[in-house]
Amino acid sequence: MNYPLVARLLGGLCWLMGIAMLGSIPWAFPQLQVAEQFESDGCWALVASMAICFGVGTILRWVGRDARTLLYRKEAMAVVGLSWVLATILGALPFYLSGAARGWVDPSRGVQQPMTVADCLFESQSGFSTTGATVLTELEDPEIVPRSILFWRSSTHFLGGLGIIVLFVAVLGQGSAGKALMRAEMPGPSKEGSQERMQHTALNFAAIYIGLNVLLTLVLLLEGMTPYDALCHAFGTMATGGFSTYNASVGHFQSELIDYTLLLFMVIAGINFTLIYLALIGRIGTMWHDVEWRAYIGILLGATALVVGLSLFVYHDFNPDGSLSFGQEARDAVRYVSFQVAAIVTTTGFGTHDFDQWHQFARSLMFLLMFVGGCAGSTGGGMKVIRHVLFIKILGMEVERSFHPSVIRPLKLGDKVIGDAELKNQILLYFGLITFIFMLSWITLVAIEPDSTWTDAGQPVENKLIDSASAVAATLNNIGPGLGTVGAKQNYAGFSSPAKMLFVFLMMLGRLELFAILVLLIPGFWRSR
Amino acid sequence: MNYPLVARLLGGLCWLMGIAMLGSIPWAFPQLQVAEQFESDGCWALVASMAICFGVGTILRWVGRDARTLLYRKEAMAVVGLSWVLATILGALPFYLSGAARGWVDPSRGVQQPMTVADCLFESQSGFSTTGATVLTELEDPEIVPRSILFWRSSTHFLGGLGIIVLFVAVLGQGSAGKALMRAEMPGPSKEGSQERMQHTALNFAAIYIGLNVLLTLVLLLEGMTPYDALCHAFGTMATGGFSTYNASVGHFQSELIDYTLLLFMVIAGINFTLIYLALIGRIGTMWHDVEWRAYIGILLGATALVVGLSLFVYHDFNPDGSLSFGQEARDAVRYVSFQVAAIVTTTGFGTHDFDQWHQFARSLMFLLMFVGGCAGSTGGGMKVIRHVLFIKILGMEVERSFHPSVIRPLKLGDKVIGDAELKNQILLYFGLITFIFMLSWITLVAIEPDSTWTDAGQPVENKLIDSASAVAATLNNIGPGLGTVGAKQNYAGFSSPAKMLFVFLMMLGRLELFAILVLLIPGFWRSR
Repeated sequence: MNYPLVARLLGGLCWLMGIAMLGSIPWAFPQLQVAEQFESDGCWALVASMAICFGVGTILRWVGRDARTLLYRKEAMAVVGLSWVLATILGALPFYLSGAARGWVDPSRGVQQPMTVADCLFESQSGFSTTGATVLTELEDPEIVPRSILFWRSSTHFLGGLGIIVLFVAVLGQGSAGKALMRAEMPGPSKEGSQERMQHTALNFAAIYIGLNVLLTLVLLLEGMTPYDALCHAFGTMATGGFSTYNASVGHFQSELIDYTLLLFMVIAGINFTLIYLALIGRIGTMWHDVEWRAYIGILLGATALVVGLSLFVYHDFNPDGSLSFGQEARDAVRYVSFQVAAIVTTTGFGTHDFDQWHQFARSLMFLLMFVGGCAGSTGGGMKVIRHVLFIKILGMEVERSFHPSVIRPLKLGDKVIGDAELKNQILLYFGLITFIFMLSWITLVAIEPDSTWTDAGQPVENKLIDSASAVAATLNNIGPGLGTVGAKQNYAGFSSPAKMLFVFLMMLGRLELFAILVLLIPGFWRSR
Repeated sequence: MNYPLVARLLGGLCWLMGIAMLGSIPWAFPQLQVAEQFESDGCWALVASMAICFGVGTILRWVGRDARTLLYRKEAMAVVGLSWVLATILGALPFYLSGAARGWVDPSRGVQQPMTVADCLFESQSGFSTTGATVLTELEDPEIVPRSILFWRSSTHFLGGLGIIVLFVAVLGQGSAGKALMRAEMPGPSKEGSQERMQHTALNFAAIYIGLNVLLTLVLLLEGMTPYDALCHAFGTMATGGFSTYNASVGHFQSELIDYTLLLFMVIAGINFTLIYLALIGRIGTMWHDVEWRAYIGILLGATALVVGLSLFVYHDFNPDGSLSFGQEARDAVRYVSFQVAAIVTTTGFGTHDFDQWHQFARSLMFLLMFVGGCAGSTGGGMKVIRHVLFIKILGMEVERSFHPSVIRPLKLGDKVIGDAELKNQILLYFGLITFIFMLSWITLVAIEPDSTWTDAGQPVENKLIDSASAVAATLNNIGPGLGTVGAKQNYAGFSSPAKMLFVFLMMLGRLELFAILVLLIPGFWRSR
C-alpha cells in the first residue's frame, strides 16, 4: 500500500472541505436576512472547523510530500473509502462545535437536548451520503440549530452529490490517479475507459450537476422561495439527498407547483448523467432507447398508478371522511403519490404527505422501492435500476438453463450483448451482499436497540421488527425516512448512539456501493501491496 | 418431451397414493379406540379417494403403456414437479370428500365452517411438503375432523418425508429413470453418482427414515402416548413436518420428557442421512468432521444460547411476574427455547410455547432462522445449512477479490476443494431466487389479502407487513407457524382462498428447491425436446 500517496490525496480532500465550509459562514450574518441576529456559535464553529480541516490537510500533504503518484486499484479503493470516513468526521465538526441541539427537552426552561458525537456523525454522513435522514427535530428554531449550520447541513448534500471524490478528481486533477479513482467511485456497473475519457466525464458530470443546481435554485426562487430555502432544497433535490429546512419537509410549502417542480428535478437527478449530457448535445433519442431509463420511468409510473388506483378505489387514503369530490381526491392522490414514489425511487426522501398512514400495500411497496434506487451514473443511491434489470434477466436465463444446461446465452440489453459470466457473477454477488448486509444489520439493530425507543415514542413494541427493517433499508439505500418510528413524520433522534453508528456505517456502505468500505475491514487489504 | 413416459411414471405415483390411503382407514373404526363410533364420512371419503387414485393411475399407465423408458433431465424435472402437483390434488380428496371442517362457526347450533377447495389443497400440500401449516382450528373435535382423516393428514408428512419420489424410485424401481429422478429430487447440492449408487442411497435413506419413525413411535409409546398420537407425532417429527393431533401442538402433553425426546429426533431428522448412515455403520467420526453438521449444531446451540441469555437477564419472558426461582426460570427457558429453535431450524414447526410473545430479538431471530433449514440430504426444508456456509465463504472471497482481482481461489470446505465457478454461481443464484420469490410473494400477499383478515382477528392492521412476510417465509421454507396472525397460537384459517393458493405454490417451490416447479411455468420447457 502506497500510504504516502493515500495521505496526500486525503490531505487535498481536507483542504476542499475547508473551502466548502466557507460558503456557510455568510448565513450567520443578519444582513442576509436569514439569521435574525449574528450567530456567533455557528460562525465560530465553522471557522474553527475550517482551521481544523486546513490543519489536518496540511499535515497529510506534508506526510505525502514525496509520494510516487502511481495509484493502483488498492490505493484508489483506500482513498475512496477513507475519504468518506474523513469527510464524515470533518463534516460533523460544525454541528459539534456550534452546540447545535436535537431539540427541546423543555422549551419553557430553555433546556435543550444536545447533539451527541453519534448525532453529529450521523447528520454529517447522512448529508455526504445524500441520505437525508436526520436526528434534528426542531429545524425551524435558530436557537436549536443556527441557520449557518443548517446551511452547512444542506451543503454536505451538494458536496456528496456526485461524490466528493468525482469533484476532487475533476477539480484538483490528480494525474494518473483519476482513472482508478473514477472507476471505484463511478456509481453503477460501467465499462473501462481511457483516463482522458474519465476526466472528461467527471468534468461534464460536475458541470451538468452544478448547472442543474443553479437552474433549480432559480426556478424555486421564481416560485416564491427565499434564496436560502431555494438553495437548500436545490441541494437536497439534485443530490437526491432530502434534507429540508422545515420540519414538515417539502410539505411545508403547501404548493402544488413546488411539489411538481421538485418531482421533475428529482426524476432528472435519478437519470444517468451520460444520458442527460447526450440529451443536452441534441442526442435525446438515446434516452428513449435506453433500457435502464425505460425501466426507471416504468417503475415510477407503474408504482404511482398502483398506489393511486388502490387509494382511489379501495382505501381512500386521500379522502378518509368522504368530503372530497372524486376529481379532487384523484388530483391529491396523483400529486402526493407521484411525489412520494419519486422521492423513494430516486432515494431523495423528501416528504409532502405521511405515506406511513397510507394503505398497507403502499407501505410495503415503498419499502421494496427503497432497494430500487436511481439509474447508474446518477446521484441516486440504492441498488440502481440497471442491476435490477440485469438481475431479473439473469434469473430467467438461469431457470431456463436448469433444463437446457448446454445452452449458454450471452447477457443482452435490447440488441446489445453487454456482459459475460463475470458480470452475471457480479450482479448476483451484489444482490447476495445487500441481502446479507440487510439481514445482519436488521437483527443487530433489533438486538442493540432497547424496546424503550418504541414505548417512549408511544408506539407498539411489536412494530420494532418492521420499523428496524425499514430503518436499515432507508439508510443502506440512502433514502432517509422509513416506516413507523423512522417514518415521514418521525426521525432518527430517538435511537441510541450504537444504533446511530450502525446507520452511519450503512449509509457509507450504500453510497460507495459496498466494496470500497468492506475492504477497509479486511486486514489483508492493509498488509500486502 | 417424452410425454408417455411422464404419464406412466405419474400413474405409478397415483397407485402409490391409493395404497398409502389404505393405512388411514382402520382409524375410522371404533375398535382401535380412537374414533368413538364408526366414522362413515371419513371411511367412505378415503375409499372413494383410493378409487380415484387407482382410476387416474390406471388411465395414466395406459396412456404411457408404450413409452420408451429413457428418461432425460427434462422428463425427470417434469415428473418431479408434476408428481408434487398431482399428489397435492389427490391428497386433498379425503379432506374434501369427508366434509371435514375448518372449525365451528357456532357450536351450539352445530354450524361448521366447511373446508373450501383451497383449504383442502393447502392442508394436503402442507402435509406432503412437510410444512405443517394448517387451516384446521379444531383438531381435537371428531365432529369437525374425523380421526381417520386426521391420520391421513399426518400420513402425508410421512409420505412427503424423504420425498414421495425417492420412495417411488426405491420401491417401484423405474430402471434408468432412477438416477435422473434422484438427482433432481435429492435435497441440497450433491455430486453426480452412478445409477446404482443412487438406488442404493435411496433404499438406505428409506430404511433409515422408516427405522427412525418406528423407533420414535416406540419411544413415544413408552413415554405414555397412545399409538395414534405416537404415530402421528413420529410422522410429524421425522418428516420435519409439524402436524400435531392437538390444537396446542406438542405443548398439549405438558411433558419435559416428550419435549426433549422430540427435540432430539427433530435434530436427527435435520442431519444429512448420509452421515446417519455412516454413523450407523460405525463411522461416526465423519459426522464430527463434517462442516455442515458442525455449522448446523453451532446454529442450534448459538441461537438457543442467545435467546435464553436475553430472556434470563433482560426480558424475563419465562418469568413475567417474577414468581419463579432463577433455577426454575433457567430450566423453563432452556426447555422451551431449545425446542423452538430446533423446531424452526429443522423446519418442523412444532410448538410448546408461544414464541411470538417472546422478546423482539427472539422473534426476529426466529424469522431469520426460518431460512436456514436443515442439512442437505435430510428431510428438513429451508435453504439448507450447506448453502449458507458456502454463501458466506463466497461473499468473503469475492470481497477480497475486489482488491486482488487476479487471485482466483477454489471454494474449500475444511481442506477439501468442493467447487468451481459453476457451484459459486449456483449458490449465488439460489439466494437471488429465494430473495426475489420472497419479495414478490410478500408484496403480492399484502396486495391480495384484505385488511379484514387482521381486523377480524382483533390484530392491528399495521402488523400486516411483518405477518405477511413471516407467512411467506414459513411456507416457502416449509416451517409452518410464523409471526402474529400466523403465529404459534394462530393458523392460516383466516386467509382468503387466493392467499392460500399462493401458499400452496410457495410450499411446493420450497420443498422442491425451486427449479422443478419454476420450469413448469416456462412455455419453452414444454415445447422443445
